[in-house]
Amino acid sequence: MSNKIVLLPGDGIGAEVIYAAKDVLEAVSKKFNTTFEFSSHDIGGIAIDNHGTPLPNETVNACKNADAVLLGAVGGPKWDNNPSDLRPERGLLGIRKALDLYANLRPVKGFPKLLHASPLKEEIIQGSDLLIVRELTGGLYFGQPSERLDNGNAVVDTLSYTKSEMERIIDKAFQSAQLRNKHLTSVDKANVLESSKLWREIVEEKKNDYPDVTVEHVLVDAAAMKLITNPTQFDVIVTENMFGDILSDEASVLTGSLGMLPSASLAEDGVGLYEPAHGSAPDIAGKGIANPIAMIQSAAMMLRYSFDKNEEAQAIEDAVEKVLNQNYHTADLKNDNGTLVSTTEMTQLIVDAI
Amino acid sequence: MSNKIVLLPGDGIGAEVIYAAKDVLEAVSKKFNTTFEFSSHDIGGIAIDNHGTPLPNETVNACKNADAVLLGAVGGPKWDNNPSDLRPERGLLGIRKALDLYANLRPVKGFPKLLHASPLKEEIIQGSDLLIVRELTGGLYFGQPSERLDNGNAVVDTLSYTKSEMERIIDKAFQSAQLRNKHLTSVDKANVLESSKLWREIVEEKKNDYPDVTVEHVLVDAAAMKLITNPTQFDVIVTENMFGDILSDEASVLTGSLGMLPSASLAEDGVGLYEPAHGSAPDIAGKGIANPIAMIQSAAMMLRYSFDKNEEAQAIEDAVEKVLNQNYHTADLKNDNGTLVSTTEMTQLIVDAI
Ligand SMILES: CC(C)[C@H](C(=O)O)[C@@H](O)C(=O)O
Ligand SMILES: CC(C)[C@H](C(=O)O)[C@@H](O)C(=O)O
Repeated sequence: MSNKIVLLPGDGIGAEVIYAAKDVLEAVSKKFNTTFEFSSHDIGGIAIDNHGTPLPNETVNACKNADAVLLGAVGGPKWDNNPSDLRPERGLLGIRKALDLYANLRPVKGFPKLLHASPLKEEIIQGSDLLIVRELTGGLYFGQPSERLDNGNAVVDTLSYTKSEMERIIDKAFQSAQLRNKHLTSVDKANVLESSKLWREIVEEKKNDYPDVTVEHVLVDAAAMKLITNPTQFDVIVTENMFGDILSDEASVLTGSLGMLPSASLAEDGVGLYEPAHGSAPDIAGKGIANPIAMIQSAAMMLRYSFDKNEEAQAIEDAVEKVLNQNYHTADLKNDNGTLVSTTEMTQLIVDAI
Repeated sequence: MSNKIVLLPGDGIGAEVIYAAKDVLEAVSKKFNTTFEFSSHDIGGIAIDNHGTPLPNETVNACKNADAVLLGAVGGPKWDNNPSDLRPERGLLGIRKALDLYANLRPVKGFPKLLHASPLKEEIIQGSDLLIVRELTGGLYFGQPSERLDNGNAVVDTLSYTKSEMERIIDKAFQSAQLRNKHLTSVDKANVLESSKLWREIVEEKKNDYPDVTVEHVLVDAAAMKLITNPTQFDVIVTENMFGDILSDEASVLTGSLGMLPSASLAEDGVGLYEPAHGSAPDIAGKGIANPIAMIQSAAMMLRYSFDKNEEAQAIEDAVEKVLNQNYHTADLKNDNGTLVSTTEMTQLIVDAI
């Protein structure tokens, strides 16, 4: 059985963290006697520089032929003033669409050792452990028309969904809840949007298929409040693309562990893409100080979801926890009693712990 | 000069808090020797019950003929399963549109005495003082089409704006920044939405007209993070309707003072509408325990914005601060060393302090 992994380092700290994850996967490969086959391809800003497009066909084809994809990050000031179709983000949106990565899974869980870095009071954030399931290939991101009208005096974007696009992400969320604490919070704006009304109807229909899961509907504005005032009330949150973009970023800073959070973007039957929750951090790129843990945890998610290698995934997660418990930390995390280490030192510590 | 004020108590705790604000305005009227003329009208759920529609024509006409409108809150479980056009929120959306209330101003400022109630650590929230300027009559809330397609198998909502709708709210935000700390954060999703690109262009154009204001562009997902990790970096935030709905609710819980936060919804030249940031709280309605301060602060905003009565507004705000400093509090706020009071007691304390 082959385990073909495409690496898409991308821009900024992307390359630093992705090769850290590769080192960790190689340690796993030694320990568990499995083989991974790696190849690297360009996406985002570096692809614009090298190939004149943020998403070369060659990259798409490599991903389609792989078993899983690891992505670092895209974007940077160098390309910020480019026209729309020559911006790094187009590469990311393009690969999501090309691979039909409709389900974005973002777990948010605090590391006990790092809770002091949370902006929230300890009694509020303690014990929170949630998963955001975000629809990733529909809604305002891809709806047409999206254009200027009336000689540039008006503009329109379109929030469009088919029923089956909603059904598959809602099913995914119910299934995710079954594997966790069996509570699902569906977030919409059903008091205003027609699309949210359909969304809510589908959730209501589907809940008969998952009788072990309790379901709650929360309006998106209320959800933005509750994430802060009472994050422990959530288990799985499911929502459409734009709401998910906002709420998952909001949730990602709650525990003080943004540099540790992975994400998975999954297709129905195809390849999965795994990337850290953080961005390309151009300000610290090339300095060797980036925190590689979010990327390494993303590799663990890949082992679990794409390769069904739970033991191997657990080995990575345990190693990360062990190193953190020894008070090692990268520069993004303040810890007065800890030992500050570089990207490669942190990676080596995790490799050694595996 | 007449000061005709329409009261729209609405549902839940709406009536309790609006008559509290009326008492306070009457105290102001005595002290400063000004006359206010009040009339009450139905909106929301109670209007559905009494008139079969959440927004009777008579209410719209009364508002159009007034100098300012005070609104309590709308909504409650009783009407939650009504069809769209018979839901309380339709009354609110309808009055916004009928009065062309394009600018929603939501100040968020912590009361020093209440900062202990914030979910954030004191060192993070201390000193934060921001104003969210939300576009209120465009975007996804009112764009057409908003309907099912393809025999119910697809759905569409429309995010539409004219250039002049964007221009007037952006002007309003620049002007608001000039009256405060001269820093404007414009929030959009310009890396994805065409409407956001136009928005950003207009902000860039307009900034030449307000050279004393510094401008920053932040993507909506990043803004949702920064509000939590570093709320003091903001002065004025301006954004479109749906982003504003989410971010202003998120911001409203940061200081622990949700029960104290007012809002103003303004037209270009017409009447202004003032309402608390909180909702109708049906669970505590009729118990006499609601916190009337957000509504009372909304009345102060009305005096400032609609009647240019700054001294009178200040008298209310000072009275509120004085009573809070004496450690009086309503049931929504925990304060072990304070004195718990009812809605009417709190109102009387504020009246006495004026
Ligand atoms: C870069 C951007 C287009 C992207 C998105 O909005 O989806 C990012 O914010 C994310 O959440 O992965
Ligand atoms: C009740 C609802 C329609 C409304 C909105 O979304 O605008 C409310 O959330 C608000 O912010 O005033």
